Amino acid sequence: MKIDDDIAIALRLADAARAAIVPHFRTGLASERKDDATPVTLADRAAEEAMRRILAAEAARDGIIGEEFGSREGSSGRTWVLDPIDGTAGFLAGRPLFGTLIALVVEGWPVLGVIDQPIMQERWIGAAGRATTLNGREVRTRACPGLSHATLATTGPHYFDDHDGEHFMALAARTDHRRMVMGGDCYNYAMLATGQVDVVCEAGLKLHDFAALVPVVEGAGGTMCDWTGEPLHAGSDGHVLALGDPARLEDVVEALACGH
Amino acid sequence: MKIDDDIAIALRLADAARAAIVPHFRTGLASERKDDATPVTLADRAAEEAMRRILAAEAARDGIIGEEFGSREGSSGRTWVLDPIDGTAGFLAGRPLFGTLIALVVEGWPVLGVIDQPIMQERWIGAAGRATTLNGREVRTRACPGLSHATLATTGPHYFDDHDGEHFMALAARTDHRRMVMGGDCYNYAMLATGQVDVVCEAGLKLHDFAALVPVVEGAGGTMCDWTGEPLHAGSDGHVLALGDPARLEDVVEALACGH
Repeated sequence: MKIDDDIAIALRLADAARAAIVPHFRTGLASERKDDATPVTLADRAAEEAMRRILAAEAARDGIIGEEFGSREGSSGRTWVLDPIDGTAGFLAGRPLFGTLIALVVEGWPVLGVIDQPIMQERWIGAAGRATTLNGREVRTRACPGLSHATLATTGPHYFDDHDGEHFMALAARTDHRRMVMGGDCYNYAMLATGQVDVVCEAGLKLHDFAALVPVVEGAGGTMCDWTGEPLHAGSDGHVLALGDPARLEDVVEALACGH
Repeated sequence: MKIDDDIAIALRLADAARAAIVPHFRTGLASERKDDATPVTLADRAAEEAMRRILAAEAARDGIIGEEFGSREGSSGRTWVLDPIDGTAGFLAGRPLFGTLIALVVEGWPVLGVIDQPIMQERWIGAAGRATTLNGREVRTRACPGLSHATLATTGPHYFDDHDGEHFMALAARTDHRRMVMGGDCYNYAMLATGQVDVVCEAGLKLHDFAALVPVVEGAGGTMCDWTGEPLHAGSDGHVLALGDPARLEDVVEALACGH
Protein backbone atom coordinates (compact mmCIF):
# COMPACT_ATOMS: atom_id res chain seq x y z
CA MET A 1 0.00 0.00 0.00
CA LYS A 2 1.06 3.53 -0.78
CA ILE A 3 0.57 4.67 2.81
CA ASP A 4 3.25 2.20 3.91
CA ASP A 5 5.70 3.85 1.50
CA ASP A 6 4.78 7.26 2.86
CA ILE A 7 5.22 6.07 6.44
CA ALA A 8 8.63 4.66 5.50
CA ILE A 9 9.66 8.06 4.11
CA ALA A 10 8.36 9.83 7.22
CA LEU A 11 10.41 7.52 9.44
CA ARG A 12 13.57 8.27 7.47
CA LEU A 13 12.83 11.99 7.85
CA ALA A 14 12.40 11.57 11.60
CA ASP A 15 15.64 9.57 11.89
CA ALA A 16 17.54 12.27 9.99
CA ALA A 17 16.06 15.08 12.08
CA ARG A 18 16.85 13.26 15.33
CA ALA A 19 20.49 12.81 14.32
CA ALA A 20 20.75 16.51 13.43
CA ILE A 21 19.10 17.77 16.60
CA VAL A 22 20.54 15.71 19.46
CA PRO A 23 24.10 17.15 19.29
CA HIS A 24 22.73 20.68 19.86
CA PHE A 25 20.61 19.92 22.93
CA ARG A 26 21.83 21.66 26.11
CA THR A 27 24.89 23.04 24.39
CA GLY A 28 26.37 26.15 25.89
CA LEU A 29 25.55 28.71 23.24
CA ALA A 30 22.01 29.13 24.46
CA SER A 31 22.86 32.15 26.57
CA GLU A 32 24.49 34.06 23.74
CA ARG A 33 22.40 36.55 21.90
CA LYS A 34 23.46 35.85 18.34
CA ASP A 35 19.92 34.98 17.40
CA ASP A 36 21.01 33.57 14.07
CA ALA A 37 23.24 31.00 15.71
CA THR A 38 21.50 29.76 18.81
CA PRO A 39 21.64 25.99 19.34
CA VAL A 40 17.97 25.75 18.46
CA THR A 41 18.43 27.63 15.18
CA LEU A 42 21.41 25.50 14.22
CA ALA A 43 19.50 22.34 15.08
CA ASP A 44 16.34 23.55 13.35
CA ARG A 45 18.14 24.30 10.10
CA ALA A 46 20.29 21.19 10.09
CA ALA A 47 17.24 19.02 10.69
CA GLU A 48 15.12 20.64 8.00
CA GLU A 49 17.98 20.51 5.46
CA ALA A 50 18.45 16.83 6.17
CA MET A 51 14.75 16.17 5.70
CA ARG A 52 14.57 18.21 2.48
CA ARG A 53 17.47 16.24 1.03
CA ILE A 54 15.58 12.99 1.59
CA LEU A 55 12.38 14.38 0.07
CA ALA A 56 14.24 15.71 -2.98
CA ALA A 57 15.56 12.21 -3.58
CA GLU A 58 12.50 10.17 -2.71
CA ALA A 59 9.43 12.36 -3.29
CA ALA A 60 10.49 14.93 -5.84
CA ARG A 61 6.95 15.60 -7.13
CA ASP A 62 5.58 16.40 -3.65
CA GLY A 63 5.49 19.92 -2.30
CA ILE A 64 7.24 20.95 0.94
CA ILE A 65 6.24 23.51 3.56
CA GLY A 66 9.00 23.89 6.12
CA GLU A 67 9.20 26.14 9.16
CA GLU A 68 12.76 27.27 8.38
CA PHE A 69 13.10 27.25 4.58
CA GLY A 70 9.62 28.08 3.33
CA SER A 71 7.59 26.38 0.62
CA ARG A 72 8.40 24.38 -2.49
CA GLU A 73 5.51 23.79 -4.86
CA GLY A 74 4.84 20.22 -5.93
CA SER A 75 2.89 18.68 -8.79
CA SER A 76 1.30 15.73 -7.00
CA GLY A 77 -1.32 17.44 -4.79
CA ARG A 78 0.68 16.13 -1.82
CA THR A 79 2.71 18.32 0.55
CA TRP A 80 5.14 17.37 3.29
CA VAL A 81 4.83 19.81 6.19
CA LEU A 82 7.92 19.97 8.41
CA ASP A 83 8.57 21.57 11.79
CA PRO A 84 12.05 20.39 12.78
CA ILE A 85 11.76 21.67 16.37
CA ASP A 86 8.33 22.44 17.75
CA GLY A 87 8.84 23.98 21.18
CA THR A 88 11.95 26.08 20.68
CA ALA A 89 11.66 27.84 24.04
CA GLY A 90 11.42 24.47 25.78
CA PHE A 91 14.41 23.19 23.79
CA LEU A 92 16.43 26.23 24.87
CA ALA A 93 15.34 25.69 28.49
CA GLY A 94 16.79 22.17 28.36
CA ARG A 95 13.50 20.28 28.50
CA PRO A 96 13.07 16.93 26.75
CA LEU A 97 9.54 17.80 25.58
CA PHE A 98 10.10 19.53 22.22
CA GLY A 99 9.42 17.51 19.08
CA THR A 100 10.02 17.13 15.38
CA LEU A 101 6.72 17.29 13.50
CA ILE A 102 6.34 15.67 10.09
CA ALA A 103 3.01 15.64 8.23
CA LEU A 104 1.80 14.60 4.83
CA VAL A 105 -1.06 16.82 3.68
CA VAL A 106 -3.14 15.71 0.67
CA GLU A 107 -5.49 18.22 -0.94
CA GLY A 108 -5.26 20.32 2.21
CA TRP A 109 -5.98 17.51 4.69
CA PRO A 110 -3.37 15.94 7.03
CA VAL A 111 -3.36 12.17 6.40
CA LEU A 112 -0.07 11.16 8.05
CA GLY A 113 1.71 12.58 11.08
CA VAL A 114 4.82 11.88 13.13
CA ILE A 115 5.72 13.41 16.51
CA ASP A 116 9.32 12.53 17.37
CA GLN A 117 10.97 13.34 20.73
CA PRO A 118 14.70 12.89 20.11
CA ILE A 119 15.88 12.92 23.75
CA MET A 120 13.30 10.52 25.17
CA GLN A 121 13.54 8.55 21.91
CA GLU A 122 9.77 8.46 21.63
CA ARG A 123 8.04 8.42 18.26
CA TRP A 124 4.31 8.64 17.69
CA ILE A 125 3.01 7.72 14.20
CA GLY A 126 -0.54 8.41 13.07
CA ALA A 127 -2.10 7.74 9.67
CA ALA A 128 -5.67 7.97 8.40
CA GLY A 129 -7.51 4.73 9.07
CA ARG A 130 -4.77 3.27 11.26
CA ALA A 131 -4.15 3.00 14.99
CA THR A 132 -1.58 5.45 16.32
CA THR A 133 1.59 3.91 17.70
CA LEU A 134 4.26 5.03 20.18
CA ASN A 135 7.52 3.25 19.40
CA GLY A 136 5.51 0.57 17.60
CA ARG A 137 2.99 -0.04 20.38
CA GLU A 138 -0.64 1.06 19.88
CA VAL A 139 -1.78 3.91 22.11
CA ARG A 140 -5.31 5.14 22.91
CA THR A 141 -6.78 8.30 24.33
CA ARG A 142 -8.76 7.86 27.53
CA ALA A 143 -12.43 8.39 28.24
CA CYS A 144 -13.40 11.61 30.01
CA PRO A 145 -16.70 11.26 31.84
CA GLY A 146 -17.20 15.03 32.25
CA LEU A 147 -15.43 18.31 31.63
CA SER A 148 -14.95 18.89 35.37
CA HIS A 149 -12.77 15.74 35.38
CA ALA A 150 -10.65 16.87 32.43
CA THR A 151 -6.92 17.57 32.58
CA LEU A 152 -6.30 20.61 30.36
CA ALA A 153 -2.90 21.44 28.87
CA THR A 154 -1.60 24.49 27.03
CA THR A 155 1.89 25.75 26.32
CA GLY A 156 1.37 29.07 28.06
CA PRO A 157 -1.00 31.98 28.53
CA HIS A 158 1.58 34.28 26.96
CA TYR A 159 0.76 32.70 23.58
CA PHE A 160 -2.85 33.98 23.72
CA ASP A 161 -3.91 37.52 22.88
CA ASP A 162 -6.28 39.10 25.41
CA HIS A 163 -9.41 37.98 23.59
CA ASP A 164 -8.26 34.38 23.14
CA GLY A 165 -7.04 34.37 26.74
CA GLU A 166 -10.53 35.16 28.03
CA HIS A 167 -12.03 32.29 26.06
CA PHE A 168 -9.29 29.96 27.29
CA MET A 169 -9.92 30.99 30.90
CA ALA A 170 -13.62 30.26 30.46
CA LEU A 171 -12.70 26.73 29.38
CA ALA A 172 -10.07 26.31 32.11
CA ALA A 173 -12.62 27.24 34.77
CA ARG A 174 -14.77 24.27 33.72
CA THR A 175 -11.93 21.69 33.86
CA ASP A 176 -10.01 20.17 36.77
CA HIS A 177 -7.94 23.18 37.74
CA ARG A 178 -5.62 21.25 40.08
CA ARG A 179 -4.39 19.11 37.22
CA MET A 180 -3.95 21.78 34.54
CA VAL A 181 -0.45 21.80 33.07
CA MET A 182 1.41 24.53 31.22
CA GLY A 183 4.34 24.24 28.80
CA GLY A 184 4.81 21.18 26.63
CA ASP A 185 4.10 22.23 23.02
CA CYS A 186 3.54 19.16 20.79
CA TYR A 187 4.23 16.83 23.73
CA ASN A 188 0.81 17.71 25.17
CA TYR A 189 -0.87 16.26 22.07
CA ALA A 190 1.35 13.17 22.24
CA MET A 191 0.35 12.69 25.88
CA LEU A 192 -3.32 13.16 24.97
CA ALA A 193 -2.91 10.43 22.33
CA THR A 194 -1.34 8.26 25.06
CA GLY A 195 -4.25 8.71 27.47
CA GLN A 196 -2.57 11.07 29.96
CA VAL A 197 -4.24 14.41 29.11
CA ASP A 198 -7.87 15.11 28.12
CA VAL A 199 -7.94 18.49 26.37
CA VAL A 200 -5.30 20.68 24.71
CA CYS A 201 -6.30 24.22 23.72
CA GLU A 202 -4.02 26.63 21.86
CA ALA A 203 -4.14 29.61 19.50
CA GLY A 204 -1.82 31.14 16.95
CA LEU A 205 -0.60 27.80 15.58
CA LYS A 206 0.66 27.56 12.01
CA LEU A 207 0.01 24.62 9.69
CA HIS A 208 3.46 23.21 10.52
CA ASP A 209 2.55 23.34 14.23
CA PHE A 210 -0.68 21.32 13.98
CA ALA A 211 -0.76 19.24 10.75
CA ALA A 212 1.22 16.31 12.19
CA LEU A 213 -0.83 16.26 15.39
CA VAL A 214 -4.16 15.53 13.70
CA PRO A 215 -3.49 11.96 12.46
CA VAL A 216 -1.68 11.10 15.71
CA VAL A 217 -4.56 12.25 17.93
CA GLU A 218 -7.36 10.92 15.68
CA GLY A 219 -5.67 7.53 15.14
CA ALA A 220 -5.60 7.16 18.94
CA GLY A 221 -9.35 7.75 19.23
CA GLY A 222 -9.35 11.50 19.87
CA THR A 223 -10.49 14.39 17.76
CA MET A 224 -8.94 17.69 16.65
CA CYS A 225 -10.75 20.79 15.46
CA ASP A 226 -10.71 24.56 15.64
CA TRP A 227 -12.32 26.47 18.51
CA THR A 228 -15.73 26.26 16.80
CA GLY A 229 -15.51 22.50 16.32
CA GLU A 230 -14.62 22.52 12.60
CA PRO A 231 -12.05 20.00 11.32
CA LEU A 232 -8.48 21.27 10.87
CA HIS A 233 -7.10 21.69 7.35
CA ALA A 234 -4.47 23.76 5.59
CA GLY A 235 -6.67 26.87 5.74
CA SER A 236 -7.55 26.72 9.47
CA ASP A 237 -6.94 29.89 11.47
CA GLY A 238 -4.62 28.44 14.12
CA HIS A 239 -7.11 28.12 16.97
CA VAL A 240 -6.60 24.48 17.82
CA LEU A 241 -8.40 22.02 20.11
CA ALA A 242 -7.54 18.41 20.81
CA LEU A 243 -9.86 16.14 22.77
CA GLY A 244 -9.07 12.65 23.95
CA ASP A 245 -12.77 11.83 24.27
CA PRO A 246 -14.81 13.10 21.29
CA ALA A 247 -17.94 12.90 23.44
CA ARG A 248 -16.76 16.06 25.22
CA LEU A 249 -16.52 18.15 22.03
CA GLU A 250 -19.79 20.01 22.49
CA ASP A 251 -18.98 20.84 26.14
CA VAL A 252 -15.54 22.20 25.24
CA VAL A 253 -16.73 24.34 22.33
CA GLU A 254 -19.55 25.69 24.45
CA ALA A 255 -17.24 26.49 27.38
CA LEU A 256 -14.78 28.29 25.08
CA ALA A 257 -17.58 30.36 23.54
CA CYS A 258 -18.53 31.62 27.01
CA GLY A 259 -15.40 33.77 27.28
CA HIS A 260 -16.01 37.29 26.03
CA MET B 1 33.80 13.74 56.48
CA LYS B 2 30.27 13.70 57.88
CA ILE B 3 28.83 15.33 54.75
CA ASP B 4 29.95 12.32 52.71
CA ASP B 5 27.95 10.06 55.00
CA ASP B 6 24.92 12.31 54.63
CA ILE B 7 25.28 12.33 50.83
CA ALA B 8 25.50 8.54 50.88
CA ILE B 9 22.23 8.37 52.83
CA ALA B 10 20.58 10.85 50.45
CA LEU B 11 21.59 8.72 47.46
CA ARG B 12 20.09 5.62 49.03
CA LEU B 13 16.87 7.58 49.63
CA ALA B 14 16.81 8.71 45.99
CA ASP B 15 17.42 5.15 44.76
CA ALA B 16 14.58 3.83 46.90
CA ALA B 17 12.19 6.58 45.75
CA ARG B 18 13.05 6.00 42.10
CA ALA B 19 12.32 2.30 42.39
CA ALA B 20 8.98 3.03 44.05
CA ILE B 21 7.89 5.69 41.54
CA VAL B 22 8.81 4.35 38.09
CA PRO B 23 6.23 1.50 38.03
CA HIS B 24 3.40 4.03 38.50
CA PHE B 25 4.39 6.46 35.71
CA ARG B 26 1.83 6.63 32.86
CA THR B 27 -0.29 3.88 34.34
CA GLY B 28 -3.93 3.90 33.39
CA LEU B 29 -5.54 4.85 36.64
CA ALA B 30 -4.85 8.56 36.18
CA SER B 31 -8.28 9.24 34.73
CA GLU B 32 -10.11 7.70 37.64
CA ARG B 33 -11.37 10.00 40.30
CA LYS B 34 -10.51 7.96 43.36
CA ASP B 35 -8.30 10.72 44.66
CA ASP B 36 -6.87 8.47 47.33
CA ALA B 37 -5.59 5.97 44.79
CA THR B 38 -4.33 7.89 41.78
CA PRO B 39 -1.01 6.66 40.41
CA VAL B 40 0.69 9.74 41.77
CA THR B 41 -0.68 9.18 45.25
CA LEU B 42 0.34 5.53 45.22
CA ALA B 43 3.81 6.45 43.99
CA ASP B 44 4.12 9.37 46.43
CA ARG B 45 3.28 7.21 49.43
CA ALA B 46 5.35 4.22 48.38
CA ALA B 47 8.37 6.45 47.81
CA GLU B 48 8.05 8.30 51.10
CA GLU B 49 7.55 5.07 53.04
CA ALA B 50 10.66 3.60 51.45
CA MET B 51 12.69 6.69 52.35
CA ARG B 52 11.37 6.78 55.92
CA ARG B 53 12.35 3.12 56.42
CA ILE B 54 15.93 3.95 55.44
CA LEU B 55 16.06 6.99 57.71
CA ALA B 56 14.65 5.01 60.64
CA ALA B 57 17.50 2.54 60.22
CA GLU B 58 20.35 4.90 59.41
CA ALA B 59 19.53 8.29 60.95
CA ALA B 60 17.18 7.54 63.82
CA ARG B 61 18.05 10.72 65.77
CA ASP B 62 17.29 13.04 62.84
CA GLY B 63 13.85 14.58 62.34
CA ILE B 64 11.76 14.03 59.20
CA ILE B 65 9.37 16.38 57.41
CA GLY B 66 7.59 14.55 54.59
CA GLU B 67 4.98 15.77 52.17
CA GLU B 68 2.78 12.70 52.62
CA PHE B 69 3.27 11.52 56.20
CA GLY B 70 4.00 14.70 58.13
CA SER B 71 6.72 15.39 60.69
CA ARG B 72 8.75 13.28 63.08
CA GLU B 73 10.71 15.20 65.68
CA GLY B 74 14.40 14.44 66.00
CA SER B 75 16.97 15.06 68.72
CA SER B 76 19.97 15.99 66.57
CA GLY B 77 18.99 19.46 65.24
CA ARG B 78 18.99 17.88 61.79
CA THR B 79 15.89 17.25 59.69
CA TRP B 80 15.43 15.34 56.45
CA VAL B 81 12.85 17.07 54.27
CA LEU B 82 11.22 14.79 51.69
CA ASP B 83 8.97 15.48 48.69
CA PRO B 84 8.66 12.14 46.92
CA ILE B 85 7.01 13.63 43.81
CA ASP B 86 7.34 17.34 43.20
CA GLY B 87 5.19 18.16 40.18
CA THR B 88 2.21 15.86 40.66
CA ALA B 89 0.16 17.48 37.86
CA GLY B 90 3.08 17.01 35.46
CA PHE B 91 3.48 13.40 36.62
CA LEU B 92 -0.21 12.76 35.95
CA ALA B 93 0.10 14.42 32.51
CA GLY B 94 2.84 11.91 31.62
CA ARG B 95 5.74 14.37 31.57
CA PRO B 96 9.25 13.27 32.56
CA LEU B 97 9.92 16.53 34.45
CA PHE B 98 8.66 15.79 37.97
CA GLY B 99 11.25 15.07 40.63
CA THR B 100 11.98 13.54 44.00
CA LEU B 101 13.31 16.21 46.37
CA ILE B 102 15.49 15.24 49.34
CA ALA B 103 17.02 17.85 51.63
CA LEU B 104 18.96 17.86 54.86
CA VAL B 105 18.13 20.94 56.93
CA VAL B 106 20.38 21.81 59.90
CA GLU B 107 19.18 24.41 62.40
CA GLY B 108 16.67 25.59 59.81
CA TRP B 109 19.11 25.91 56.89
CA PRO B 110 19.25 23.55 53.88
CA VAL B 111 22.79 22.18 53.63
CA LEU B 112 22.28 19.21 51.28
CA GLY B 113 19.85 18.73 48.41
CA VAL B 114 19.04 16.11 45.79
CA ILE B 115 16.76 16.56 42.76
CA ASP B 116 16.13 13.16 41.15
CA GLN B 117 14.27 12.66 37.85
CA PRO B 118 13.42 8.96 37.75
CA ILE B 119 12.39 8.71 34.07
CA MET B 120 15.31 10.64 32.57
CA GLN B 121 17.54 9.02 35.22
CA GLU B 122 19.03 12.40 36.07
CA ARG B 123 20.24 13.21 39.57
CA TRP B 124 21.48 16.58 40.76
CA ILE B 125 23.35 16.66 44.10
CA GLY B 126 24.19 19.88 45.91
CA ALA B 127 25.92 20.33 49.27
CA ALA B 128 27.16 23.39 51.11
CA GLY B 129 30.70 24.19 50.01
CA ARG B 130 30.71 21.70 47.14
CA ALA B 131 30.15 21.91 43.40
CA THR B 132 26.76 20.64 42.27
CA THR B 133 26.80 17.54 40.09
CA LEU B 134 24.41 16.02 37.55
CA ASN B 135 24.99 12.26 37.39
CA GLY B 136 28.47 12.84 38.80
CA ARG B 137 29.51 15.60 36.40
CA GLU B 138 29.90 19.17 37.71
CA VAL B 139 27.33 21.65 36.40
CA ARG B 140 27.35 25.46 36.49
CA THR B 141 24.75 28.16 36.05
CA ARG B 142 25.37 30.57 33.18
CA ALA B 143 26.09 34.29 33.21
CA CYS B 144 23.20 36.62 32.41
CA PRO B 145 24.42 39.96 31.09
CA GLY B 146 21.10 41.73 31.66
CA LEU B 147 17.53 41.01 32.69
CA SER B 148 16.24 41.60 29.14
CA HIS B 149 18.35 38.59 28.09
CA ALA B 150 16.99 36.34 30.84
CA THR B 151 14.98 33.17 30.28
CA LEU B 152 12.32 33.08 33.00
CA ALA B 153 10.55 29.89 34.09
CA THR B 154 7.58 29.26 36.34
CA THR B 155 5.26 26.29 36.76
CA GLY B 156 2.13 28.25 35.93
CA PRO B 157 0.25 31.48 36.52
CA HIS B 158 -2.55 29.47 38.14
CA TYR B 159 -0.26 28.94 41.15
CA PHE B 160 -0.15 32.70 41.89
CA ASP B 161 -2.89 34.61 43.67
CA ASP B 162 -3.88 37.90 41.97
CA HIS B 163 -1.44 39.98 43.97
CA ASP B 164 1.53 37.67 43.39
CA GLY B 165 0.53 37.36 39.74
CA GLU B 166 0.86 41.11 39.23
CA HIS B 167 4.34 41.13 40.71
CA PHE B 168 5.31 38.14 38.56
CA MET B 169 4.00 39.88 35.43
CA ALA B 170 6.09 42.94 36.26
CA LEU B 171 9.17 40.71 36.36
CA ALA B 172 8.16 38.78 33.22
CA ALA B 173 7.82 42.04 31.27
CA ARG B 174 11.49 42.81 31.97
CA THR B 175 12.80 39.40 30.79
CA ASP B 176 13.04 37.80 27.32
CA HIS B 177 9.37 37.08 26.74
CA ARG B 178 9.93 34.88 23.69
CA ARG B 179 11.91 32.41 25.77
CA MET B 180 9.73 32.25 28.88
CA VAL B 181 8.68 28.71 29.74
CA MET B 182 5.77 27.46 31.85
CA GLY B 183 5.39 24.13 33.63
CA GLY B 184 8.37 22.23 34.96
CA ASP B 185 8.22 22.37 38.76
CA CYS B 186 11.60 21.38 40.29
CA TYR B 187 13.02 20.66 36.84
CA ASN B 188 13.21 24.42 36.20
CA TYR B 189 15.66 24.78 39.09
CA ALA B 190 17.67 21.80 37.89
CA MET B 191 17.90 23.39 34.43
CA LEU B 192 18.92 26.69 36.01
CA ALA B 193 21.71 24.85 37.84
CA THR B 194 22.70 23.32 34.50
CA GLY B 195 22.97 26.70 32.73
CA GLN B 196 19.79 26.49 30.62
CA VAL B 197 17.47 28.89 32.46
CA ASP B 198 18.29 32.23 34.14
CA VAL B 199 15.48 32.98 36.61
CA VAL B 200 12.78 30.89 38.29
CA CYS B 201 10.05 32.72 40.20
CA GLU B 202 7.31 30.99 42.18
CA ALA B 203 4.99 31.52 45.13
CA GLY B 204 3.17 29.30 47.58
CA LEU B 205 5.99 26.79 47.95
CA LYS B 206 6.31 24.71 51.10
CA LEU B 207 9.62 23.85 52.77
CA HIS B 208 9.54 20.41 51.10
CA ASP B 209 9.16 22.15 47.70
CA PHE B 210 12.22 24.38 48.00
CA ALA B 211 14.67 23.06 50.64
CA ALA B 212 16.44 20.62 48.28
CA LEU B 213 16.70 23.22 45.51
CA VAL B 214 18.84 25.65 47.50
CA PRO B 215 22.07 23.60 47.77
CA VAL B 216 21.69 22.41 44.16
CA VAL B 217 21.34 25.93 42.76
CA GLU B 218 23.92 27.54 45.03
CA GLY B 219 26.51 24.81 44.53
CA ALA B 220 26.23 25.49 40.79
CA GLY B 221 27.00 29.18 41.24
CA GLY B 222 23.45 30.54 41.48
CA THR B 223 21.54 32.03 44.35
CA MET B 224 18.14 31.42 45.92
CA CYS B 225 16.14 33.80 48.06
CA ASP B 226 12.63 35.02 48.75
CA TRP B 227 11.00 37.79 46.68
CA THR B 228 12.69 40.45 48.82
CA GLY B 229 16.15 38.94 48.39
CA GLU B 230 16.38 37.28 51.82
CA PRO B 231 17.98 33.80 52.06
CA LEU B 232 15.60 30.84 52.22
CA HIS B 233 15.26 28.90 55.47
CA ALA B 234 12.69 26.75 57.23
CA GLY B 235 10.63 29.83 58.14
CA SER B 236 10.48 31.43 54.68
CA ASP B 237 7.02 32.36 53.38
CA GLY B 238 7.10 30.36 50.13
CA HIS B 239 7.84 33.19 47.71
CA VAL B 240 10.87 31.73 45.97
CA LEU B 241 13.41 33.11 43.51
CA ALA B 242 16.31 31.32 41.88
CA LEU B 243 18.92 33.16 39.84
CA GLY B 244 21.65 31.59 37.80
CA ASP B 245 23.69 34.79 37.87
CA PRO B 246 23.73 36.38 41.35
CA ALA B 247 24.72 39.70 39.72
CA ARG B 248 21.09 40.05 38.55
CA LEU B 249 19.60 39.76 42.06
CA GLU B 250 19.00 43.47 42.57
CA ASP B 251 17.37 43.83 39.11
CA VAL B 252 15.03 40.90 39.74
CA VAL B 253 13.95 42.01 43.22
CA GLU B 254 13.40 45.55 41.95
CA ALA B 255 11.35 44.34 38.94
CA LEU B 256 9.18 42.14 41.18
CA ALA B 257 8.54 45.02 43.56
CA CYS B 258 7.17 47.10 40.66
CA GLY B 259 4.02 44.97 40.41
CA HIS B 260 1.21 46.38 42.50
